[in-house]
Amino acid sequence: MAGAVDFTSIAQQFVKFYYEQFDTNRGNLGALYRPHSMLTFEANPSQGVDAILEKLQSLPFTSVQHRTDTLDAQPSSEDGGILVLVTGALLVEGSERPMSFTQTFQLRPDAGTFYVFNDVFRLVYPAA
Amino acid sequence: MAGAVDFTSIAQQFVKFYYEQFDTNRGNLGALYRPHSMLTFEANPSQGVDAILEKLQSLPFTSVQHRTDTLDAQPSSEDGGILVLVTGALLVEGSERPMSFTQTFQLRPDAGTFYVFNDVFRLVYPAA
Repeated sequence: MAGAVDFTSIAQQFVKFYYEQFDTNRGNLGALYRPHSMLTFEANPSQGVDAILEKLQSLPFTSVQHRTDTLDAQPSSEDGGILVLVTGALLVEGSERPMSFTQTFQLRPDAGTFYVFNDVFRLVYPAA
Repeated sequence: MAGAVDFTSIAQQFVKFYYEQFDTNRGNLGALYRPHSMLTFEANPSQGVDAILEKLQSLPFTSVQHRTDTLDAQPSSEDGGILVLVTGALLVEGSERPMSFTQTFQLRPDAGTFYVFNDVFRLVYPAA
């Protein structure tokens, strides 16, 4: 897989930035989406910057921390798209224990940077 | 999101077929990949039908059952690609308890059917 360093490194930088913004200033996340971007958050779909930002701002936790446990990246298109799969833990203020989550993104290149085209988030409950 | 029924229904059919084949005749999964397909299984990358099939056949469980708990799908490209995120549980014969997993696929259309272009699998351990 040629260019493995590049797409993995871009994915790592993106994920770090994304969760830092999510955990400190969620309103900044709007800059990462475009009008055709999609978010499916716990099965609820939103499309476009405004709808996605509204969804993210409406989440019922005001103080939250994401911990990234694993990150995998693959090229997703011939024009430089990147598929990212994250697993990790969500630490919500006032809750007793972290919750496992998984999130997948498709990043697309645009004018020297990347934006989020696909975004799917799910909490993962213990299997047994 | 126009066509929501179509891509979700295709994703559901694919996921059902994929895990049925995985759990009954893993060798059949080769037909779902193409020479440029990628699999990252617990951080180990494979590319191409032969390498992917070899990886899947080499997994250290001979009898396994996948349980799908959630499935989300989004269009991933203008030409009909579909991004799928699955969470579920893996029940390995002889093991005491199911393990949570997450898996993301990008399906691409090809001659009236779909093949797997991206495939990333991760076990998810309890967060705390």
